[in-house]
Amino acid sequence: MVSEPDKQFFDLSPQPRQNVTLRDVADAAGVTLGTASKAINGRGRLSPETRERVRSEARRLGFRFFSLQEDVPASQGVMVGVLTTDNYGRFSLPLLMGIEDAFGTRPVSAMLCNSRDQSREQQHLQHLLARKVDGIVVSARREDSRPPINIGRTVIPVVYAFTYVEDPNALCVLPDDAQGARLATEHLVSLGRRQFAHITGPSYFEAVRLREGAMRQVLAEHDIALPHNRVLSGPWQESWGYTATNFLFDQDPSIDALFCGSDQLARGAMEALQARGLRVPTDVSVVGFDNWEPMACATRPPLTTVDMNLAQVGRYVGESLLALFAGEQRSGIVRLPCSLILRGSSDPSQSG
Amino acid sequence: MVSEPDKQFFDLSPQPRQNVTLRDVADAAGVTLGTASKAINGRGRLSPETRERVRSEARRLGFRFFSLQEDVPASQGVMVGVLTTDNYGRFSLPLLMGIEDAFGTRPVSAMLCNSRDQSREQQHLQHLLARKVDGIVVSARREDSRPPINIGRTVIPVVYAFTYVEDPNALCVLPDDAQGARLATEHLVSLGRRQFAHITGPSYFEAVRLREGAMRQVLAEHDIALPHNRVLSGPWQESWGYTATNFLFDQDPSIDALFCGSDQLARGAMEALQARGLRVPTDVSVVGFDNWEPMACATRPPLTTVDMNLAQVGRYVGESLLALFAGEQRSGIVRLPCSLILRGSSDPSQSG
Repeated sequence: MVSEPDKQFFDLSPQPRQNVTLRDVADAAGVTLGTASKAINGRGRLSPETRERVRSEARRLGFRFFSLQEDVPASQGVMVGVLTTDNYGRFSLPLLMGIEDAFGTRPVSAMLCNSRDQSREQQHLQHLLARKVDGIVVSARREDSRPPINIGRTVIPVVYAFTYVEDPNALCVLPDDAQGARLATEHLVSLGRRQFAHITGPSYFEAVRLREGAMRQVLAEHDIALPHNRVLSGPWQESWGYTATNFLFDQDPSIDALFCGSDQLARGAMEALQARGLRVPTDVSVVGFDNWEPMACATRPPLTTVDMNLAQVGRYVGESLLALFAGEQRSGIVRLPCSLILRGSSDPSQSG
Repeated sequence: MVSEPDKQFFDLSPQPRQNVTLRDVADAAGVTLGTASKAINGRGRLSPETRERVRSEARRLGFRFFSLQEDVPASQGVMVGVLTTDNYGRFSLPLLMGIEDAFGTRPVSAMLCNSRDQSREQQHLQHLLARKVDGIVVSARREDSRPPINIGRTVIPVVYAFTYVEDPNALCVLPDDAQGARLATEHLVSLGRRQFAHITGPSYFEAVRLREGAMRQVLAEHDIALPHNRVLSGPWQESWGYTATNFLFDQDPSIDALFCGSDQLARGAMEALQARGLRVPTDVSVVGFDNWEPMACATRPPLTTVDMNLAQVGRYVGESLLALFAGEQRSGIVRLPCSLILRGSSDPSQSG
């Protein structure tokens, strides 16, 4: 279940009523058009004073933000452009669904563009703006932070999903990797496991660092050691899970809890364990990350794993767009809770 | 490699030069506006005579079709809306890429909308038309044929991908499932295999029927029997591949060639074979379908499989849109060739 995220990120401002232009707002606040745009949209680097002055002038003049009721004929709908670098679509399709779900019965189309490289991303962005898209979502495959998109002086809401930008005025929505890893580790500890190992992806992924850090923290709270040679980082490939497991158990066959940074890694790990004659979960408990069903439901036994609730992230992105349309100010990095999906690979008391 | 498809599908007409309206064309041909639209766009049921009369009047009057050079400012680009029911994105993302690749350096954005149900599909379509999209691609997860989309009297090109409609004027582009299955079967025959079995998906998928039919045909050409109890059809799940393999080998352990309708099925089959102590490919050659790399590259040994060249299908769809923009008439069902990807699971002479 997704709980309400921390409210400290939000700055709620009243919805304005009249028609004035951004130029009027800029003139009244004594700033350039570009600065006024940044202040209204909460993008770019700006002092809090300047931002507040512009926004207070906007409120005083009744600068009209986007209104679903007034600005969007039902036949046209709200068009949300989603830019992504996710070539597999595994993150993007639930995102599209979640965004649309947030709009309920209001007409909306979330449309996905494949940002294969920076120049193509910029081209898609230009086309979306030329077609008067109402909002933009920038998504990625979680390769850490990325540069903010450049939409010039255009005044439209932008939300980042599954990635974050180094801009305090941007709103970035991600799954809470640390909390997900805590759920997995606490579950393994509660089963009585004490000999932990972690097989994960490349450490230049923020998610990899957050998950390992949270796992270490939970184990420290329970006075359980996690020696450095019990954490192996490599490519996001099933074959890495297989190889890493053999390396770990060649060195130390006492390991009884294996937390893997993806379901693919966990699948390779389970195959290696079974080839060594070790039983899952009787001898070793295994937990994955992703709840990617073609993997997690196909292992024998099926895989206990962390679900990032991707559609819930999408829904939150959609709700944020609605709030931004209404003139609210939202910024900061919002991390939404993951869930633990219990299946057969972790609890030895449940195995036949 | 994708070869040039059959030219019989295409009706090339010269590119017109002047501005006239569709109403002028309809009046000149003595038909309603709706009929003129159908004739110009090659959609809907129409006699060849009527269609040719309208199109010949259109050519005579110089009815202007869509021109990339004249109609699309570079900053706006060509917008192609792609409607899909593929929830995983595995088919859709290569399709987007292929469409954009076909446009080369010309500015284009292929944008994916998730058609979760008929009413949402109709809503997306309405939004795309209201935003003056330049072309529409309708895609699916290969669940056989589907009804044509309803775009009223709007005059824009529509191409169907990975699905087909019962409309002789529509252009439908699919992978050639039968040819792919022939490649797989001929490969297995060439390895000296004679005891064949087939594990596949639900038979209400056209692809399932085409693949089985082609496999039977190749085997018949080589006087190899395929008894009916050697073809098992079930859900597209890895666990079905596992169960079906055990059923087949319990009945008849002489089987030496297993052609599976998907890589997931093949993966389950390989696990069952290995659990029975049978060696792949020494005892049994296994070939899959899809070349879905997270599956096909993770089996031990890696899986020989049929690649549907999804991006090539996308590229052909994009090239067709360009041709339709230019006033060409294209219709019919085009099936593009698959490739066989050789890996370790099929050829016993290559195994260590």
